[in-house]
Amino acid sequence: MNGAQSLIRTLVGSGVEVCFTNPGTSEMHFVAALDAVPEMRAVLALFEGVATGAADGYARMAGRPAATLLHLGPGMANGIANLHNARRAHSPVVNVVGDHATYHQRYDAPLQTDIASLARPVSCWFRETTKGEELPRDGADAVVAARKAPGGVATLVVPADVSWDEAPDPAPPRPVPAPPVVDGATVQQVAKVLGAEGPAVLFVGGPAMTERGLVAARRVAARTGARLLCETFPAVHERGAGVPEVERLAYLAELAALQLDGARRLVAAGTPAPVSFFAYPDRPSDLVPVGCEVHVLATVEDDVVQALEDLADALGAGADPVSSPGPGRPELPTGGLDAEKAAAVIGRLLPEGAVVSDESNTAGIFVPAATAGAPRHHWMTLTGGAIGQGLPLATGAAVACPGRKVLCLEADGSAMYTLQALWTQRRENLDVTTVVYANRSYAVLAMELGRVGAGAGGPRARRVLELTSPTLDFVALAGGMGVPAWRATTAEEFATNLGLALAEDGPALVEAVVGSGL
Amino acid sequence: MNGAQSLIRTLVGSGVEVCFTNPGTSEMHFVAALDAVPEMRAVLALFEGVATGAADGYARMAGRPAATLLHLGPGMANGIANLHNARRAHSPVVNVVGDHATYHQRYDAPLQTDIASLARPVSCWFRETTKGEELPRDGADAVVAARKAPGGVATLVVPADVSWDEAPDPAPPRPVPAPPVVDGATVQQVAKVLGAEGPAVLFVGGPAMTERGLVAARRVAARTGARLLCETFPAVHERGAGVPEVERLAYLAELAALQLDGARRLVAAGTPAPVSFFAYPDRPSDLVPVGCEVHVLATVEDDVVQALEDLADALGAGADPVSSPGPGRPELPTGGLDAEKAAAVIGRLLPEGAVVSDESNTAGIFVPAATAGAPRHHWMTLTGGAIGQGLPLATGAAVACPGRKVLCLEADGSAMYTLQALWTQRRENLDVTTVVYANRSYAVLAMELGRVGAGAGGPRARRVLELTSPTLDFVALAGGMGVPAWRATTAEEFATNLGLALAEDGPALVEAVVGSGL
Repeated sequence: MNGAQSLIRTLVGSGVEVCFTNPGTSEMHFVAALDAVPEMRAVLALFEGVATGAADGYARMAGRPAATLLHLGPGMANGIANLHNARRAHSPVVNVVGDHATYHQRYDAPLQTDIASLARPVSCWFRETTKGEELPRDGADAVVAARKAPGGVATLVVPADVSWDEAPDPAPPRPVPAPPVVDGATVQQVAKVLGAEGPAVLFVGGPAMTERGLVAARRVAARTGARLLCETFPAVHERGAGVPEVERLAYLAELAALQLDGARRLVAAGTPAPVSFFAYPDRPSDLVPVGCEVHVLATVEDDVVQALEDLADALGAGADPVSSPGPGRPELPTGGLDAEKAAAVIGRLLPEGAVVSDESNTAGIFVPAATAGAPRHHWMTLTGGAIGQGLPLATGAAVACPGRKVLCLEADGSAMYTLQALWTQRRENLDVTTVVYANRSYAVLAMELGRVGAGAGGPRARRVLELTSPTLDFVALAGGMGVPAWRATTAEEFATNLGLALAEDGPALVEAVVGSGL
Repeated sequence: MNGAQSLIRTLVGSGVEVCFTNPGTSEMHFVAALDAVPEMRAVLALFEGVATGAADGYARMAGRPAATLLHLGPGMANGIANLHNARRAHSPVVNVVGDHATYHQRYDAPLQTDIASLARPVSCWFRETTKGEELPRDGADAVVAARKAPGGVATLVVPADVSWDEAPDPAPPRPVPAPPVVDGATVQQVAKVLGAEGPAVLFVGGPAMTERGLVAARRVAARTGARLLCETFPAVHERGAGVPEVERLAYLAELAALQLDGARRLVAAGTPAPVSFFAYPDRPSDLVPVGCEVHVLATVEDDVVQALEDLADALGAGADPVSSPGPGRPELPTGGLDAEKAAAVIGRLLPEGAVVSDESNTAGIFVPAATAGAPRHHWMTLTGGAIGQGLPLATGAAVACPGRKVLCLEADGSAMYTLQALWTQRRENLDVTTVVYANRSYAVLAMELGRVGAGAGGPRARRVLELTSPTLDFVALAGGMGVPAWRATTAEEFATNLGLALAEDGPALVEAVVGSGL
């Protein structure tokens, strides 16, 4: 068998059964091998940023990696922004990047590029296979590297001749080391810290954001009086009725400062101590209040949930205080649509077991509160700040979770980065409902303009932040990719049309016109 | 004045008067500065790949750089594929990449990235300004680095605090060194080579692709009997009635081998000796025939046109043999539309002085011949093989060439990479007519599958190369961004609708359904 076949069989054997791809000439043997290895599902994306974002979404929900198949340096480059988000989410991803044949690289043909330099900033592991006999082993190594806690992006470069030459049999799956258990001394030390006088904060994130982790965290908080907060942008947050609620640290540093105000000790579990997303003149980058000690219970590389449970036990915490039933679902609003009413409609209609891909940015600020009492669901956020994540992430999550509804909450500016994801959703008949918030501006930037001290902006500055002249018609854009779509300008229309969209078995879209954010 | 204002004024003073951008929080002071420095025209793109491709198109037609303004590593990453094409085109481009404030970088906030590692593979010059007092100088240096022959991508990273702190006055423009003149001994040596026995090839590219360069090349060819060929993918090719015709080296290595067959000497001017675009099993990567000597008259860094004129004079070549009037314009075809008939229609209707952005790939193979006798025009090709170039390139060329019609010939698969360019064309009312060839496949890959020895492909392989299920509706997609569009399935419809599109003063699109390439 050739290298491409051996590598694909190695990946399948290691549990990698989906490949999101936009291939080129140097990857043709991998494409041909799809018929020889039907266990590998290939999902075509019309742009690499869709492929990598889908691999991230798949990993977040499946808990194991998908592969991507990318075309040399430019294909890799197009996928980097969403690999950056995947890196920040600690999502396991295996990138297979085709390259020129080993003997062709010295000719500096037009597509010759320094793939290593492009890949390294987002990769926890990088290797180029130059000998066919090493390809299966390298493939198995890549999977382990991607899966090892906390999870990361492993990038394997495969020159064309390595893919078409004869190769050894597939490599067997390799064991993935379990995340280390936090030692008892650390747990005892943190228990002592939380037992001391003065206000404390338990700051959780990463693997702690499951029901089991949040139950343990709430036991600790209830026992010690510590304030329970979670990271601003969790990769996956299990929430809804029956799951302990946890307050998210605010994106705006001035609000986060209020949440942390007066804390004397901060215990971090599964996430680093909080820092400001951006720098602002005359504001600290470090959000930990002056005089507040930081203690680490567990890093994202550790067995965070076990550490929280051990801490709760060490503190003699009782069973989880029974959760209040939560605020329940909001009433359906009426009248002209705005971001707050849209949130209420979503809170009313969110299906049980939904997976939410949230890149709603400013327009979505009311949605978490409005959905806190909705039936149990998973919530994925923009982990790395690289916009264009939401639609691809939803695509991959839907591949990972057949039978569950995926709801994608998408800002209009961000939607236009990777809108091609809708085509893949249609082709694969993925059960994704997308809400595009049409506020027709980069509203977050209109706010940030003032926050960084650049003033309100004159007319030329404001024009760069407006998505008008022309207005985007998302109903037409979705239709151009075969996805049924509706527009809503009132709360009633939004409720009706979101209901219609959710009733589809495949992809659908609602453009929610929520008024200018400027 | 702050750093952002000083840098923008420095760029304007150095002749950089257009900035293609998608900014973020760390670039807000640059956005605010647009009102203080109205000489800088800011053009908003909905995706960074549009901004960088537009900067490339602007540079190719204006002969001087535009700036881009990009948002940290992810913004840079999204622009890399088209910067790769710009690098291969030797286009001068000045990237300004915002970064976190210098003091914020150690906190590893979510958008923290290794921008240098991402930027270097496409940049001929890279610098991060860490002190405000150095910013104007760095800006002036960046422009010189971009403009110095042969032209390249200069990347300047500006941390947020450097943009908002006080900065010195703008730096004055710095002289750009002229490309070196090829010495007389080299010219004499090449003249002797071309005077020797046996078939010779004069292989030209880069700066030689202007009328003046091609006249000199034809004088040399006519005097010596050398076969005149040009590179496969020139950045800009001046052509049409009255301009010397030059045969392009074929993309397919098997056809290129026929063009070069029997050559004993190859003289290169403005481009390296030809190599195969990809490697194929059992085919040489080097296209120069065995036994053929390669001689370099001028590299792309030299004054190539002067070298060709000196060579013609040294050979005692007469004036340019008067050009034949060329093949004239084709007749309008009739019946079902295909790629060949579409080419005839384009050859019939191409306006005088048009600028053509050609990313038509397989569907466009008949167009160069069909337009050889059209009125004089400029032709831009996909220099680096990174698809998604055509629409952005057309956008930037239209900014550079007000009053000229830009025709973008775009393959459907490539169009979907950077379709957001249509929105910028509408917003800026750019005079671009786009023809999307809807063959509903990655037709080039269907061909390459066999050429690399991977066989015809089974059903699972072919599905990855097909752009069906669903079919893309480019009329709807264009309409969603405010661009009027028509579809054509017959030659008559295509002639009518291309005529309507060309009659628009702003952007317009025709989807030419040319049948499956599979």
